[in-house]
Amino acid sequence: MPKSQRKPADFNELAHDLGQKFAYPASQKTYLQGSRADLRVPFRQIAQQSTQSSKGLLPNPPIPVYDTSGPYSDPAITIHLEQGLEKCRSAWIAERGDTVQLADLSSTFGRERAADPATAQLRFAHIATPLRAKAGKNVSQMHYARRGIVTAEMEYVALRESLGLEQLRQDPRYEALLRQHAGHSYGANLPQEVTPEFVRQEVASGRAIIPANINHPELEPMIIGRNFRVKINGNLGNSAVTSSLAEEVEKMVWSARWGADTIMDLSTGKHIHETREWIIRNSPVPIGTVPIYQALDKTGGIAEDLTWAMFRDTLIEQAEQGVDYFTIHAGVLLRYVPLTAKRVTGIVSRGGSIMAKWCLAHHKENFLYTHFDEICEIMQAYDVSFSLGDGLRPGSIADANDEAQFGELRTLGELTHKAWQHDVQVMIEGPGHVPMQRIQENMDEELKHCFEAPFYTLGPLVTDIAPGYDHITSGIGAAQIGWYGTAMLCYVTPKEHLGLPDKEDVREGIITYKIAAHAADLAKGLPGAQLRDNALSKARFEFRWEDQFNLGLDPERARAYHDATLPAEGAKIAHFCSMCGPKFCSMKITQEVRDYADALEAKASESGGEVVGQEVVLAMEEKSIEFRKMGSKIYS
Amino acid sequence: MPKSQRKPADFNELAHDLGQKFAYPASQKTYLQGSRADLRVPFRQIAQQSTQSSKGLLPNPPIPVYDTSGPYSDPAITIHLEQGLEKCRSAWIAERGDTVQLADLSSTFGRERAADPATAQLRFAHIATPLRAKAGKNVSQMHYARRGIVTAEMEYVALRESLGLEQLRQDPRYEALLRQHAGHSYGANLPQEVTPEFVRQEVASGRAIIPANINHPELEPMIIGRNFRVKINGNLGNSAVTSSLAEEVEKMVWSARWGADTIMDLSTGKHIHETREWIIRNSPVPIGTVPIYQALDKTGGIAEDLTWAMFRDTLIEQAEQGVDYFTIHAGVLLRYVPLTAKRVTGIVSRGGSIMAKWCLAHHKENFLYTHFDEICEIMQAYDVSFSLGDGLRPGSIADANDEAQFGELRTLGELTHKAWQHDVQVMIEGPGHVPMQRIQENMDEELKHCFEAPFYTLGPLVTDIAPGYDHITSGIGAAQIGWYGTAMLCYVTPKEHLGLPDKEDVREGIITYKIAAHAADLAKGLPGAQLRDNALSKARFEFRWEDQFNLGLDPERARAYHDATLPAEGAKIAHFCSMCGPKFCSMKITQEVRDYADALEAKASESGGEVVGQEVVLAMEEKSIEFRKMGSKIYS
Repeated sequence: MPKSQRKPADFNELAHDLGQKFAYPASQKTYLQGSRADLRVPFRQIAQQSTQSSKGLLPNPPIPVYDTSGPYSDPAITIHLEQGLEKCRSAWIAERGDTVQLADLSSTFGRERAADPATAQLRFAHIATPLRAKAGKNVSQMHYARRGIVTAEMEYVALRESLGLEQLRQDPRYEALLRQHAGHSYGANLPQEVTPEFVRQEVASGRAIIPANINHPELEPMIIGRNFRVKINGNLGNSAVTSSLAEEVEKMVWSARWGADTIMDLSTGKHIHETREWIIRNSPVPIGTVPIYQALDKTGGIAEDLTWAMFRDTLIEQAEQGVDYFTIHAGVLLRYVPLTAKRVTGIVSRGGSIMAKWCLAHHKENFLYTHFDEICEIMQAYDVSFSLGDGLRPGSIADANDEAQFGELRTLGELTHKAWQHDVQVMIEGPGHVPMQRIQENMDEELKHCFEAPFYTLGPLVTDIAPGYDHITSGIGAAQIGWYGTAMLCYVTPKEHLGLPDKEDVREGIITYKIAAHAADLAKGLPGAQLRDNALSKARFEFRWEDQFNLGLDPERARAYHDATLPAEGAKIAHFCSMCGPKFCSMKITQEVRDYADALEAKASESGGEVVGQEVVLAMEEKSIEFRKMGSKIYS
Repeated sequence: MPKSQRKPADFNELAHDLGQKFAYPASQKTYLQGSRADLRVPFRQIAQQSTQSSKGLLPNPPIPVYDTSGPYSDPAITIHLEQGLEKCRSAWIAERGDTVQLADLSSTFGRERAADPATAQLRFAHIATPLRAKAGKNVSQMHYARRGIVTAEMEYVALRESLGLEQLRQDPRYEALLRQHAGHSYGANLPQEVTPEFVRQEVASGRAIIPANINHPELEPMIIGRNFRVKINGNLGNSAVTSSLAEEVEKMVWSARWGADTIMDLSTGKHIHETREWIIRNSPVPIGTVPIYQALDKTGGIAEDLTWAMFRDTLIEQAEQGVDYFTIHAGVLLRYVPLTAKRVTGIVSRGGSIMAKWCLAHHKENFLYTHFDEICEIMQAYDVSFSLGDGLRPGSIADANDEAQFGELRTLGELTHKAWQHDVQVMIEGPGHVPMQRIQENMDEELKHCFEAPFYTLGPLVTDIAPGYDHITSGIGAAQIGWYGTAMLCYVTPKEHLGLPDKEDVREGIITYKIAAHAADLAKGLPGAQLRDNALSKARFEFRWEDQFNLGLDPERARAYHDATLPAEGAKIAHFCSMCGPKFCSMKITQEVRDYADALEAKASESGGEVVGQEVVLAMEEKSIEFRKMGSKIYS
């Protein structure tokens, strides 16, 4: 059966397929144990082969890497998509004693859909009734943080960010591998050790968020803030034109496998509600949505017919399903809309254009803005985080950094302030299309007007002229803005502007953004960030081909590219590669240089001290004769 | 017959194939006429469709783009690979009266190969005997420039850089399209108009080079300097392991088609000499080589056996074939070699490692350094430009910006000074692998120690962890260093570190680098740089799908990606796309905003002036009622 026609009944088959694809080579799913038995933080250990040297085999230590893939990559766990993942956070939430389990869904629409026979065969079967904060309670991570409480989620992300770095520092096998360049952090504060208390402070201050809806207990908590690892978001979603439910679930798992830290479900087509349920119940990463898309769908696509009541019902519907963050375009104010009229590409954000149309049609202020306090009250009852949408982001280089964009940004700052009064977590969305010389201005303006709330940008694309390659035009901008301080980078796939991404496009987009995020971590000087680069380069230098593949972001592709030129299995243990051939290989020659320098040092040591001046020349001359006598060869 | 077995006899077939592939859609090969009949500078005009508006069809002007593809893209010219391209510069060179045509090749090796029956069937049949400067003459562009002579080559590149911008500025159709952001040029001096005299000054000062060997008269001149468009280089070359002669010629033409400004032939395998002849005779772009590769081949791969005499013969052999620039690793000094011993990846440059091995084996100073003046004398007799090689460039993030690298860079500065005393053109090669926060230091050091000679970098790669995606890791660094002032970016393909690139890898690498170079031009504020972005974005906004494809760097891929989701021909005139579907499209809504703002302005105009304060509110309210009455629709 073609995948596009798959129904939930086929999900066992799908789960099996996914399981097959999850195994990274030479990798072991490992856990860091927290302060309680049910607090186990996953990471991936990549085993390395030994170095062949004249002194025999020298073992190389395993390299830990951040792991977003969830239980799918644990061979000890059998996946049942139709039951959903294990609810690893349920006990933590319950123990706080500030939530109630509702008897039924609070959303009218949700109740209707739950009772709709037409969608019965698509429905996730094991929906629990939702949790909500008890009356007068606020269950946001920010609320706890501000009261000095270190939640299990905070401890979890502290361990997750650290990857056991403190232990590695004590282990002599990692000493050389942990060396790295001093960073230039543009004011970010990256501690040598990420403690739960540091996480609490960052969340309390609003500089970081932990998107973690109490109705998404399957979630493995993660943190978004510029004093932590730079994160990436992958999008999925069906549209009116194409894509099916099973495909979207598969894309979610696939995205997490390649490294998406969060996933946005941007569905605008059929069965939005049902698709979302399947996704959340099976997602180990936070799920974000743009609720106005579904609200618009409920009006049959007529923006003027949107009402606060209907939107409010949609927020509650989605909050009770477990969406972790909502993009809310509350900054698209009536007075900003005419500022976009002279733009080359007007308003390109869907949410922004919907709200602009509503504002114009009613000549009223954006109802998301006027009802913002009520939205905050919903958010705090489920701990949904705001992703304050940049509805007026530039859609072309020409429109970058204009008054419409920056006007909206200042309003997002005002709303951030308001959300924080409700102890609701906030991040701020950013552009878009921006030429390189104007990227930093975006970061500076955001930090200033939004009080260092985490910035979450789409690229930005640094030129408009490469449709088909916009993962690259945007990856360039993403690396830069990540360096300047953006906390999360929303990926762009090669299909941007042209069509809907398929699975290979998703993979390409995610790897591109893992590169951008990691490059930013390196540039900021995140402690431990260079470990993987160092290990991979050492493996490359030593012709440990398998290790070079396995330590990379995409081992499968690296191996395939190598094998395209030299397919023989023997070539993977060869001390040369297809670029130079066996006769003169620069890396091999370097080994000779190294042996030469060692001999030189030994000579110095023999003579009882440093060899300097004329002595160096003599010593080198002698060594060069020796070197030639030995046949100018190493590995003798 | 599989391509890898193709022999020169099949080149007619190949020429036919290439001709088929050259046509860009909606494009016309156009020429700017210079001051003499044989000075015609090619560019490509991309035609646009008209804008559909309520006022009827509004025509959009054609967009000129820089064209590296040479005669292959001119339908009026029939290509005969076995005869080579037309020698468009022959008359210019002859008229200067400072060259002699030699009776035979000056290189011993060249003469042997010309008489070798074993390679007769591979040999290019129409080799002219070479030109050389008359005794006591210097034929370099720098030499002319310093004597106040504006050569035809200088006029050519002035016209080529300008793309007729002065004319476009006079044409009201381009007024809005020519708007662009102020650049941040990091000290580059980008004139509003590129005149031949400006080119002369830049070449005279050493800030720019025009690589143009007098034995490569088929060349269409181009300029490399930070006060001009950022250029890109593509590599090709067979190796001992794989690849054939015909494949390399095909890759050369293919590279020029996609936009390579220069091409380096890095062959290390069989028939280096013969392959190079075929490439140069058919190349419209400058060809660079690394002569030490071939010299080493002549020793059977034994670096210790290299001699100055043999190397000198190789330089002359290649100079008389028409190579436009030589990478010379003269900065790898004996004293720098031990500095690489503690590196993670030692010496990764092939040329650098060959010279390091030679230095160690002989315990002598690098013979390229000690014979540098003699090399300059050869360069000036043919006008071969130096690309002073960075033999000690870092091969990993860990090794970036270390003393070995920067020591060599300072020596390259010393050599630049010496080359300029001979009026020989110079550019400086740069890294490599560098984390983002340390890229600018490379540019600053180069400008300082090499007196603003053009910088020519390989990437740099901003992380080591993505084998299989190093076009992207390096494209990020390339865009940045291009912005900071690098004049030419050497591409990296997805196969870097893994295998030899095939044609699709070459395309991917070139497009990635066209993006990086263009992003740098935009960021620096190169006059006219934003024209193509503006035109493409306007087309995108107006749903002129064909124009969006055609204005992009890779129309073929853009179209294929679009058609993967919406293959019907009708979809390419549809006012929606697959991302949002027909019902709510943000770009469509923006058009409504625009009409609304227009109406508002008309209202203001009716009332005899600006509408302010309460009047605005009233006017908007009125318009919103009208808007709803009209069914909230445009295109009525």
